[in-house]
Amino acid sequence: MFDTLPGSITPRMNGAKLEVEGWKRGVTEKNNSSFYVFGDMRKHQRNLRKNRLFIVVSLVVILFVLYKFNYVSISNISPPFSSNKVPLIIVITPTYKRPTRLADLTRMSNTLSHVPHLHWIVVEDSHNKVKHVEKLLQRSTLPYTYIAVRTIPGYPKRGWYQRTMALTHIREHTSEVLNGHENGVVYFGDDDNSYDVRLFTNYIRNVKKVGLWAVGMVGGTAVESPDVVNGSVVGFKVKWNPNRKFAVDMAGFAINLSVVLGSSAVFGTSCARGAGAPETCLLEDMGLTRGDIEPFGYDKKEEREILVWHTKTVKPTLGDNKSKGNSTAKNNAPLETNGFIFEA
Amino acid sequence: MFDTLPGSITPRMNGAKLEVEGWKRGVTEKNNSSFYVFGDMRKHQRNLRKNRLFIVVSLVVILFVLYKFNYVSISNISPPFSSNKVPLIIVITPTYKRPTRLADLTRMSNTLSHVPHLHWIVVEDSHNKVKHVEKLLQRSTLPYTYIAVRTIPGYPKRGWYQRTMALTHIREHTSEVLNGHENGVVYFGDDDNSYDVRLFTNYIRNVKKVGLWAVGMVGGTAVESPDVVNGSVVGFKVKWNPNRKFAVDMAGFAINLSVVLGSSAVFGTSCARGAGAPETCLLEDMGLTRGDIEPFGYDKKEEREILVWHTKTVKPTLGDNKSKGNSTAKNNAPLETNGFIFEA
Repeated sequence: MFDTLPGSITPRMNGAKLEVEGWKRGVTEKNNSSFYVFGDMRKHQRNLRKNRLFIVVSLVVILFVLYKFNYVSISNISPPFSSNKVPLIIVITPTYKRPTRLADLTRMSNTLSHVPHLHWIVVEDSHNKVKHVEKLLQRSTLPYTYIAVRTIPGYPKRGWYQRTMALTHIREHTSEVLNGHENGVVYFGDDDNSYDVRLFTNYIRNVKKVGLWAVGMVGGTAVESPDVVNGSVVGFKVKWNPNRKFAVDMAGFAINLSVVLGSSAVFGTSCARGAGAPETCLLEDMGLTRGDIEPFGYDKKEEREILVWHTKTVKPTLGDNKSKGNSTAKNNAPLETNGFIFEA
Repeated sequence: MFDTLPGSITPRMNGAKLEVEGWKRGVTEKNNSSFYVFGDMRKHQRNLRKNRLFIVVSLVVILFVLYKFNYVSISNISPPFSSNKVPLIIVITPTYKRPTRLADLTRMSNTLSHVPHLHWIVVEDSHNKVKHVEKLLQRSTLPYTYIAVRTIPGYPKRGWYQRTMALTHIREHTSEVLNGHENGVVYFGDDDNSYDVRLFTNYIRNVKKVGLWAVGMVGGTAVESPDVVNGSVVGFKVKWNPNRKFAVDMAGFAINLSVVLGSSAVFGTSCARGAGAPETCLLEDMGLTRGDIEPFGYDKKEEREILVWHTKTVKPTLGDNKSKGNSTAKNNAPLETNGFIFEA
C-alpha cells in the first residue's frame, strides 16, 4: 500500500534508529549504575523537533498528492463519522424486458452511481430475474435489491404492482435496506427518464415529509410543476387534470421514509381520484395534504432549472439481418445478434 | 484540514515533549561540563519505538479511513505520475437545440464524467453558443471545448459539418486539446446514444490506429458488428449496405489521434461510397484499410457485450398549457414554462 505512495517513511525511520545508536554508555562514579550521555542536548531537541516536523510535513505531502491526483476530495472530507446521519436515498425502479432496456438502465446506472448513500431497488416485471440486469447492477457499485414479480391480474402494466412490491419490501426489510442509515427518502425513478445528479443531492436528500419539483416533457406539455406562492404549493401548473390533489408525475416527488413506514398505503389496481394516474392516490392514502408539500427549485423567479425529464426511448426498428442488403426482408425471421447479448 | 481527520497527532506530540522534559540535568565531576541522564535507557528506546509505531499506525489508520469512506480508491493509486502517458479520449459531439436536448446531454455528461482523461468537444449547429449548454459543460467537471458553427449550404444536417469543424479544431489546437497528454483517440459520440463506461475505458482508450465494435439498435437491426474471424475483420454483420469498406455506424469506431493528425480528411458534403452514410468515406480518406481495423469485444464466442446503443429519444408532445384541463387546446399558443429553462 505504501509502496505506491510518494514520500518515503523508512529512511527517516532509520534516521530515528541511528539517533538511538548515537548514545554513549557510561557508568556513574557514585553508585556504579549505568547512565547514558548524549553529547549535545540542543542537537537532540532539534532531532525531536525535526521528527515532529517530518510527521506533519509527510502528512501534508501525502494529503496534497492524494488531493492533487483526485484521490481525495477536500469537499468530501466532512463529516466522515456521521455518514449514517445522511438520509439514504431509496430509488424504486420498475423495469421490463425490451430492446432498449439495457441501454436505458446503463444510462440510469451511470447517473445514480454518482450519488453516495443511495440504495437502488429494481423490480423486474417477470417471474424471473434477468442475468444481464443483475450484472449491470453489480457493476454499478451501488447497494441494490433486485426482485422479480410479475404483474398480477387486475393491476395495470407500467410498474404499479412492481412499485407496490418495492414499498412492501422496504417496510418488511427496513434495517436491511437502511444498512446503518438512520433515515431515508423514497423516490420512484423510472429507467428511461433523464436525471440531473442534483435532483438527488440537492432535492431528494433534503425531503423531510414530501418534496415536489418540476418535471420536463410530461403530460403533453413542456414543464409540469407545482404552483408556488410565498413558498407554499397552492396548485399545479399542469395541462392534464390540474384539479388532482397532487397533480404530479411519478418522477416529480419523493417521500420521507418515516411517512412510508407510518402508513400501509400502496398502489391499488386503479386510481379514480387521479383519473387513472396513481400518484395522487398514493400520496393521499399516506395521509399527506397539500400543506405538507415542500417545493424544490423555486429559489429564482426565472431561469429555474429542471432536474428531471420524463423521456422515452424510441422503439427501434428490428428486422432480420440475414438477407443482407435486402431492406424488404421479412421481419419474422429470428434476430441475428452475432453472439451479442440483446433483449428483444 | 487535519481537524476533520480522525486520530489526533497533537497529544502524542505533547507526549514527545513530555519525554524531553523528563531528562535530568547533571554535571560531570571530571570537567564540569553539562551532561544529561535519562533514568531508563530501555524506557527511552521503547518510547522511540512507540513513536515510530505511532507514525506508521497513524498513517495506516488515516489511509484506511480515507479508503473506507471512498475518499481514496486503492485501485486508482497507480500510476500517479505517468498520467500524461494515458491516451486522452477526445469525444466529438454535434448538437442542436430541441426539447429533449438538455435531457440527452445531461445523461451523456453523467456518463462521460466517469471517464478520466477525457476531453469533450461539443459543437452547436447554430451561430451562437447556448448558455445552458455551456453551464452543463462547466458542471460536468470535464475539460471541454464548446464551439458554435451553423451547417453551411451543401452539407446535410445531422452533424456532418460540426464534426468536420471539430476535426479542424483538433488539428489546429492539438496541444491545447491534449493539455500535456502525449497521445489521444478521437471518438464521435452523439448526445442521444447510450454508452457503457467500459466503451471508453476498455475499448476507445486502447485504440492504436482504428478500433471497431458492435453497436446496438442501428441500421434496422438489433446489432451491427464487424465480422471477425481469427481476430481479423473480414466483413460486417450489418443489414444495410454490408459491402461498404467500413460498414460501421458513427458510434462504432474510434481513430487514434496520430491517424487524424497524419491526414487532412474531413466529412464532405456527401458520401457516395457509403450510400449517403459518411463513416466509410472518412475512414477511407484517412488512408485506412480493413487490415488496419482492431476489433473490440470478441473475447467470447457467445454473450458478447454491447457497450454502445444507437438510441433516439421520443419527440415529446408539447401543447399550450394555459387552457388547463382542455386537452383539445390549440398548439400554436406560446409554451408556458412557469419560469423554467426549456428549449423548444
